[in-house]
Amino acid sequence: MVQFNARTLPHMTSQPDAIHTPFSLEGLNNASDADTLAWFEGLYEHSPWVGQAALQHKPFRSLAHLKWALADSVSRASHEQQLMLVKAHPILAAKPASGLTTASQTEQQLAGLWQSTPEQAEQLAQLNQRYQAHFGWPFIIAVRGSRGLGLTPQAILKELERRLHHPPAIEFHECLRQIHRIAETRLHGKCQSHPLLGNEVWDWHEWLAQYSDPGFIEHGELSVSYLTPAHQACAQTLRLGMLACGFDEVCIDAVGNVVGRYHPRQSGAKYLLTGSHYDTVRNGGKYDGRLGIFVPMACVRELARTGQRLNIGIEVVAFAEEEGQRYKATFLSSSALTGEFDTEWLSQSDHQGISMREAMAQAGLKPADIPSIQRDAAQYLGFVEVHIEQGPVLQGLNMPLGVVTSINGSVRYLIDIKGTASHAGTSPMDQRHDAVAGFAEWAIYVEQRARQDGDSVATIGMLHVPHGSINVVPGSCQFSLDMRAPSDVQRDAMANDILKHLHAVCEARSLNVSIEETVRAAAAPSDPGLQARWEQAVSQLGLPLHHMPSGAGHDAMKLHTLMPQAMLFVRGENQGISHNPLESTTADDMQLAIDAFSLLIKDFF
Amino acid sequence: MVQFNARTLPHMTSQPDAIHTPFSLEGLNNASDADTLAWFEGLYEHSPWVGQAALQHKPFRSLAHLKWALADSVSRASHEQQLMLVKAHPILAAKPASGLTTASQTEQQLAGLWQSTPEQAEQLAQLNQRYQAHFGWPFIIAVRGSRGLGLTPQAILKELERRLHHPPAIEFHECLRQIHRIAETRLHGKCQSHPLLGNEVWDWHEWLAQYSDPGFIEHGELSVSYLTPAHQACAQTLRLGMLACGFDEVCIDAVGNVVGRYHPRQSGAKYLLTGSHYDTVRNGGKYDGRLGIFVPMACVRELARTGQRLNIGIEVVAFAEEEGQRYKATFLSSSALTGEFDTEWLSQSDHQGISMREAMAQAGLKPADIPSIQRDAAQYLGFVEVHIEQGPVLQGLNMPLGVVTSINGSVRYLIDIKGTASHAGTSPMDQRHDAVAGFAEWAIYVEQRARQDGDSVATIGMLHVPHGSINVVPGSCQFSLDMRAPSDVQRDAMANDILKHLHAVCEARSLNVSIEETVRAAAAPSDPGLQARWEQAVSQLGLPLHHMPSGAGHDAMKLHTLMPQAMLFVRGENQGISHNPLESTTADDMQLAIDAFSLLIKDFF
Repeated sequence: MVQFNARTLPHMTSQPDAIHTPFSLEGLNNASDADTLAWFEGLYEHSPWVGQAALQHKPFRSLAHLKWALADSVSRASHEQQLMLVKAHPILAAKPASGLTTASQTEQQLAGLWQSTPEQAEQLAQLNQRYQAHFGWPFIIAVRGSRGLGLTPQAILKELERRLHHPPAIEFHECLRQIHRIAETRLHGKCQSHPLLGNEVWDWHEWLAQYSDPGFIEHGELSVSYLTPAHQACAQTLRLGMLACGFDEVCIDAVGNVVGRYHPRQSGAKYLLTGSHYDTVRNGGKYDGRLGIFVPMACVRELARTGQRLNIGIEVVAFAEEEGQRYKATFLSSSALTGEFDTEWLSQSDHQGISMREAMAQAGLKPADIPSIQRDAAQYLGFVEVHIEQGPVLQGLNMPLGVVTSINGSVRYLIDIKGTASHAGTSPMDQRHDAVAGFAEWAIYVEQRARQDGDSVATIGMLHVPHGSINVVPGSCQFSLDMRAPSDVQRDAMANDILKHLHAVCEARSLNVSIEETVRAAAAPSDPGLQARWEQAVSQLGLPLHHMPSGAGHDAMKLHTLMPQAMLFVRGENQGISHNPLESTTADDMQLAIDAFSLLIKDFF
Repeated sequence: MVQFNARTLPHMTSQPDAIHTPFSLEGLNNASDADTLAWFEGLYEHSPWVGQAALQHKPFRSLAHLKWALADSVSRASHEQQLMLVKAHPILAAKPASGLTTASQTEQQLAGLWQSTPEQAEQLAQLNQRYQAHFGWPFIIAVRGSRGLGLTPQAILKELERRLHHPPAIEFHECLRQIHRIAETRLHGKCQSHPLLGNEVWDWHEWLAQYSDPGFIEHGELSVSYLTPAHQACAQTLRLGMLACGFDEVCIDAVGNVVGRYHPRQSGAKYLLTGSHYDTVRNGGKYDGRLGIFVPMACVRELARTGQRLNIGIEVVAFAEEEGQRYKATFLSSSALTGEFDTEWLSQSDHQGISMREAMAQAGLKPADIPSIQRDAAQYLGFVEVHIEQGPVLQGLNMPLGVVTSINGSVRYLIDIKGTASHAGTSPMDQRHDAVAGFAEWAIYVEQRARQDGDSVATIGMLHVPHGSINVVPGSCQFSLDMRAPSDVQRDAMANDILKHLHAVCEARSLNVSIEETVRAAAAPSDPGLQARWEQAVSQLGLPLHHMPSGAGHDAMKLHTLMPQAMLFVRGENQGISHNPLESTTADDMQLAIDAFSLLIKDFF
């Protein structure tokens, strides 16, 4: 049997250099299939077929590639096989149970499950029973968690309770994802390999998430709105963090952006601009925006720590405002960099009546200085942004990273269908002018038409019948429509079809319709050159490439008006949920993002 | 040319006897087609083809039949012909205009249009222009109104403004209905025939509508909730009205019903029970319920006035409570008659915290007496109820009266589809669990499945996405479902299909669904014998028969549990709108209802 030790296996270290120097996977790749399978044993519970199917991806290009190959084997298996894999897992127990594999036993013990109180143990048993009765398989959770430190019994119970409400198909996929995460942590154990920088960056997110606005922090929720005390505390923390990382210059600019510059080897060289935002939505997640600040900060720290200078300068901007939560000026801070800051925004008031001008004065910011922070494109190579995906695509594909091809163009409408309210009992079906029936007929088309493009999306997020009664045929139905596509042409073709169909349905049913366009934003296709650099970095990590549009808007969308840009997406946990406390990613995926960013910046001429 | 005078034409008088004695329509029916057409001239503006097409219905059985035959000609015509008819009408003017037919001129003058203020004249001109530009035809309104007394310029302007918001197809049909109403009033002129009792009963409704609850009366709205001061004033008014009509016994019973008995020729004979409710919904119409009290009152008055006694007694009950507006005890007062009054209702509180027991005490009612008002079915022939249709069917068919075959059984649900909230931009169409998309797919089936039965109805009256956001794929969609059918079997088959489809859609989309049944009421088929009596009465009026289920619940539904019942429906104006101040019917249709009721009661052995 081949023996692997830390030195002969690709592992993640705090030295990003280590990851793209040619790791020797020879031990594994040159071993016989039987030996390889023997080494795989225990990664996927009682399911040697997973490793068997992964052999087709040999030679493994990296540990990340191996993880993907194993997960991909499960994805390609039949539902029956997947179900067998799920059912092969033991029921989580609050005390040592018989029949556990050594790996399971160690994990359950490390997670502190065996330190459960009697009440927790009783609750776990009851929830396990409900779960098993409802879904027909055991509850599966990677008890080491996304950071690898182990979840508390309380956290595990909370997840179990929450996931009980999942529709079966979603919960099944969640179980598979947890199984892959379990395999990942077991691989770490086997290889004595740990995502050291990923862990650190994970902790930085926790550290920044200590600051939250009043009304939220009391409930353990995260909300950081523009220029609140919590927001200013974040800015100061980021400023000190950048200084500690070894940036050469750090400042807080006229709109509250925290800007750190790491000088190039030779003065006069161009800078690569990067970064993302540190404000959050109300009761949001910890990674949206912030990951794109911390990833380059970690890379710069590693450069500074080892005294390395690059051919290019690195300018990291922690943008103060992207979410448009406190004032209706989305991309406020990136607009300041592109020279599109609208001074009329200063007169906007928040819900307490505090104007942006007043809020800036209180924070010691000088609006008069805003024009001076406009960037000169000639001094930059472009803008790159790392961001948590905020969607389920990468998780569904078992891919930790995705290369963004375009930030989708969008258009939004508020729509009101007016029919004729009438008595639900006395209005025959063929004599109704039912606003909801018209809506439903059209809404089905919305879904079909968006699907047709493959990468367009259309969403009816708000919907209600004003003053609806159970016994009244609805005379009105009001709703929102949000449509996005990788190009403006594609978006407009879809919007045109969908609105045309709305008019046709309403005309056929004698309904009136009023349509108000509220938002129209142009698509921002990635710069081919910068995009190719991300592709190269991802490939060097041994990962398969996945191209995807960004459905959400990002600061890169605004910077796009000034310079080339390209984004990298990092897989989110929990089906990619975002703008929600459940938003998460793993320390391993953070490590890969850091590795990719390091490769990207070192590759500049 | 044949000359017609009042004596040779069927006309409506205050003597219901007159209507079913064999009227001579010989003059018209024996005349040559050319002469008949010449007499028709002017009824339908510049459109002799309407009369021409009506000739196929000769011989005309009554004036009501002639009106229907003319209207039916228009209904059978092509859309182009109908549009020509509409366009043949002059634009309403605030001063004498050239080119008006004498009839139009007289009508516009009588309506007081020529007494418009300069501001009104200017407003009329502007609205006319907007209307014509929007719809492509002139605004048409029967300026004499539903009572025949003429509308004020203010009322006309209000209608013009309101109807501007109609979808074109609905407004087109409203214009045709107005044209038929114009023809009807012109026929009155030609025949010197007027609905004298219908006019009186119309006025009785106005008179009772003076009483309205505080908070409504100040805004000119009608709201009469159980045992409010307005409600008690209505009861006293009805009591005095019944006494004035010549009822032998009148009382207000233990739940507030006003009961009048008109004795039979011989004591010991059975009674026919009839009536309807005098409470209203908030901001309701004047005719819902009350028409079924006043129609038999008018008939009894005619009997008493001429000293006639019938073989049967007549017992008219003005029910105190049907709408369930103040307390959640619908059919409260008819339940007292069937012995199903639930004494637990007495502890219910209204929104001000006043219990029903307290409200009764304040009104001088003694709950202890409620059991004594339970009726003994053996003393009754059954229950008949006249009611405004509260739907568009009769108006669509140009029928003033409809015979009810069954009061529909109903079932109601509150439903919650739970999907997964996710980012509208980043969730690909094929990875969504969108509660609204699932709703829409199912809602289309609801409509199809209800249509399939012909006379079933299904309605989604309440609908909303809780906390919906424009950029979030909806994780929840909540709505109501109301289903009704003429028989319980038909209702249950529909409900079964519709709920099965809901489960199927939700399963296919990985959505969770919770369904709560809130109401289940059995259908109340009409008694064949009583229904046949209504059919005979309607036929004797010369009208074609139309059978229809009642989609709404009525007091007859409750009486059904005790004795045979059958209802007669009277056409509503404004597409049959009800529970709304626009609810209306014409004095002519009221007259026909009175005539039908007179025929019914005199026909008993």
